[in-house]
Amino acid sequence: MADYKKIDAYLEKNLDKSIAELSKLVAQPSVGAQNLGMKECAALVAEMLKARGFKVEIMDTPGAPVVFGERKGKSNKTLLIYNHYDVQPPEPLELWETPPFEPSLREGKLYGRGVSDDKGHIVSRLFAIDALLDSFGELPCNIKFIIEGEEETASINLFDFIKKNKDRLKADACMWEFGGVDHRDVPMEYLGLRGICYVELSVETASIDVHSGLGGSIFPNAAWRLVWALNTLKGEDERIRIPGFYDAVRPPSKRDRELIAAMPEVADEYKSRYGVKQFIKGLTGGVELRVEEVFTPTCTICGLTSGYQGPGSKTVLPARASAKVDFRLVPDQEPDDIRKKLRAHLDAQGFSDVKITDLGGDPPARTDPDDPFIQLVAKVAEEVYEMPMQLVPMVGGSGPSHPFVHDLGLPVATGGLGHPDTRAHAPNENIRLDLYLKHARHMARIINEFGK
Amino acid sequence: MADYKKIDAYLEKNLDKSIAELSKLVAQPSVGAQNLGMKECAALVAEMLKARGFKVEIMDTPGAPVVFGERKGKSNKTLLIYNHYDVQPPEPLELWETPPFEPSLREGKLYGRGVSDDKGHIVSRLFAIDALLDSFGELPCNIKFIIEGEEETASINLFDFIKKNKDRLKADACMWEFGGVDHRDVPMEYLGLRGICYVELSVETASIDVHSGLGGSIFPNAAWRLVWALNTLKGEDERIRIPGFYDAVRPPSKRDRELIAAMPEVADEYKSRYGVKQFIKGLTGGVELRVEEVFTPTCTICGLTSGYQGPGSKTVLPARASAKVDFRLVPDQEPDDIRKKLRAHLDAQGFSDVKITDLGGDPPARTDPDDPFIQLVAKVAEEVYEMPMQLVPMVGGSGPSHPFVHDLGLPVATGGLGHPDTRAHAPNENIRLDLYLKHARHMARIINEFGK
Repeated sequence: MADYKKIDAYLEKNLDKSIAELSKLVAQPSVGAQNLGMKECAALVAEMLKARGFKVEIMDTPGAPVVFGERKGKSNKTLLIYNHYDVQPPEPLELWETPPFEPSLREGKLYGRGVSDDKGHIVSRLFAIDALLDSFGELPCNIKFIIEGEEETASINLFDFIKKNKDRLKADACMWEFGGVDHRDVPMEYLGLRGICYVELSVETASIDVHSGLGGSIFPNAAWRLVWALNTLKGEDERIRIPGFYDAVRPPSKRDRELIAAMPEVADEYKSRYGVKQFIKGLTGGVELRVEEVFTPTCTICGLTSGYQGPGSKTVLPARASAKVDFRLVPDQEPDDIRKKLRAHLDAQGFSDVKITDLGGDPPARTDPDDPFIQLVAKVAEEVYEMPMQLVPMVGGSGPSHPFVHDLGLPVATGGLGHPDTRAHAPNENIRLDLYLKHARHMARIINEFGK
Repeated sequence: MADYKKIDAYLEKNLDKSIAELSKLVAQPSVGAQNLGMKECAALVAEMLKARGFKVEIMDTPGAPVVFGERKGKSNKTLLIYNHYDVQPPEPLELWETPPFEPSLREGKLYGRGVSDDKGHIVSRLFAIDALLDSFGELPCNIKFIIEGEEETASINLFDFIKKNKDRLKADACMWEFGGVDHRDVPMEYLGLRGICYVELSVETASIDVHSGLGGSIFPNAAWRLVWALNTLKGEDERIRIPGFYDAVRPPSKRDRELIAAMPEVADEYKSRYGVKQFIKGLTGGVELRVEEVFTPTCTICGLTSGYQGPGSKTVLPARASAKVDFRLVPDQEPDDIRKKLRAHLDAQGFSDVKITDLGGDPPARTDPDDPFIQLVAKVAEEVYEMPMQLVPMVGGSGPSHPFVHDLGLPVATGGLGHPDTRAHAPNENIRLDLYLKHARHMARIINEFGK
């Protein structure tokens, strides 16, 4: 590993310069939900890639453009790096200690909206490339960047984009946009994301709300229709009652259980952080809780709304009621299939009057923990983090990794500069400079070893 | 009925003067929910009573004061007249054609907040008293006025007030605060009000909302708990499942059914006015629909609230959920008893975590259609309205008539100046001057005949 002495020295020496470049990128707002600064930010990212000799194209989509860049390297292997330049809205502004788009360095941390999610990842990866170019004069492998602008708004155009540009995105492995260390500073390798199928269920029983004294005994009530319909979806035993819902579920393997068993206990932390008295399904903690947490699909009511919701009483029989419902899916469930089964179930139960509005979905996706690329990423972490990465076979959240795994056929590895107090999506988002440097060192090793 | 020629002539001649007095009362805001002008309005009402020789006291309650007035009459019989001086909030102001507290006369109607509910009733009754005093120089019977200031905010202090002042309120019959004609201009005599028991059911499962990707498989969900708890209260068959809920229900008598049968059909009107496609319980119209409408108790969800309710999706597992639930009660159900049974039911069903907040209640109350006072009120209407009143044994709404019927032991008759487009509680509240005059003529007859 003698290669890395020079590289690490370069990174140490140029850290301030790289943080200055990151600060410039963070100072350019790119709030997707508010359509603020999107084109300007895409142009800035494109400039940064061009400065490293990448051939860059800003590619249109029906939404925010995708910045695509590629540069040939020594070997014929290709690493695809997925990032995004859009950020979450900065509100509530009054909770920021320094303004969200004026990056501020204090006590070893850089603060600003998007500094962690995801601009810090973009610039630290460019920083690793700078170090490699400085050492070798060329890249160890081909690198392609796909940097989208809609990750924070559900990546709604990414799936089509990937399908349409399959040849151009051809690669041998993919580095994902996020990653980081846990509360013990152990670097984590997240290998799977659950899918999601998000719907709104709504009922309308009248054209206007009716006085409850008048209609209560004789008129249909939208809120009751909704309650009864929801009740058919899941019972108090937490079993989802939609016929065929569990058909495509692949249970966790022995290897998955071993990996989950190697992870730290979470029960007490969850209880104290969220003020939860007990878990459902009789779970108390240990491996079973952690396996259940990520390897079972869910049917979560995210919101309910109907009729009068203010203080005190209003005697009204509501004409309309609706629920936001989020199904988290595990391999090999598919959102389209679940939506169809949901419709069939509601119809069969006499709830044809309950309308389903599709509010988006991603299929689940996983990468094999024993894939050689995953093994490489985990192994080269050891020199940087002084321990190998902890392999996490699945996490509870969702993201657009499915087309990378299934359409492009790539192993997808995570790795990054996140830490438990990074506050992505919240006020005072921040990164630790030590982890920024470590991620650059890690990325330089990944790219170099992958090229061999 | 020669008595009434002079009286009717007086009323015809002095109508403008009475409308001017009403306008003065309407111009004095008295919005209970906003605590606006309550004392000023009570004082003004007291002045109006004093001007008719009533002995008046403005009596404190824990809320708005009650104006109590009494004047002796020729006979030893006493009529108690119940009214209220508080009004509904005028909002939304932009929908008023003329300002709510600037009474405006156009096309035979007087517009303004409270002109119908209930200030028009107060002043037209004083107008009838003026005519009687003009004709006879004295009142035909003793009259007591109880004019409260909390009718629009659930009369929460009235029950105690009546219990504490039973002797003072002693009477032989009671005229209720409202009444009027239906869409055919037929005067209606409403003989019963359903009771109400209004509660909020709420659940809290965590101290903060949780990301649905994290907690969906292992954390309790407040919205689900609420849905399951509500589902135990009433099934799709519309049968309320709280043990003992129907125990005290007295079914309608043969006489009740006859009176209901004499009323006009409502099915088509309801369908078109409220945009309802069909009624529940297989009802299609006719007597059965009208009997069901008022003689069965209800369990109405008036509102649902939990988690995210905005546009699009937010992946959140709600820590809190709540429902507003309104039980309409029929004789001899009692709100306290129903609340106890609800608590016992939720506990028995495993929902001790669902909190019940009492948001108010009234027991149901009825007056016998064959009570002599009711017969008198209906009969004397004939000369004024050119038809007798239609006796309605029960209506779907609720009100504080129980203590008048059960604590004071009085027959309670309705009669008033309302009409189907009177818009009580809504913008452009109005009264028809012809009905104002008719109500004064009707009241003069009621008081005079009652004194005989």
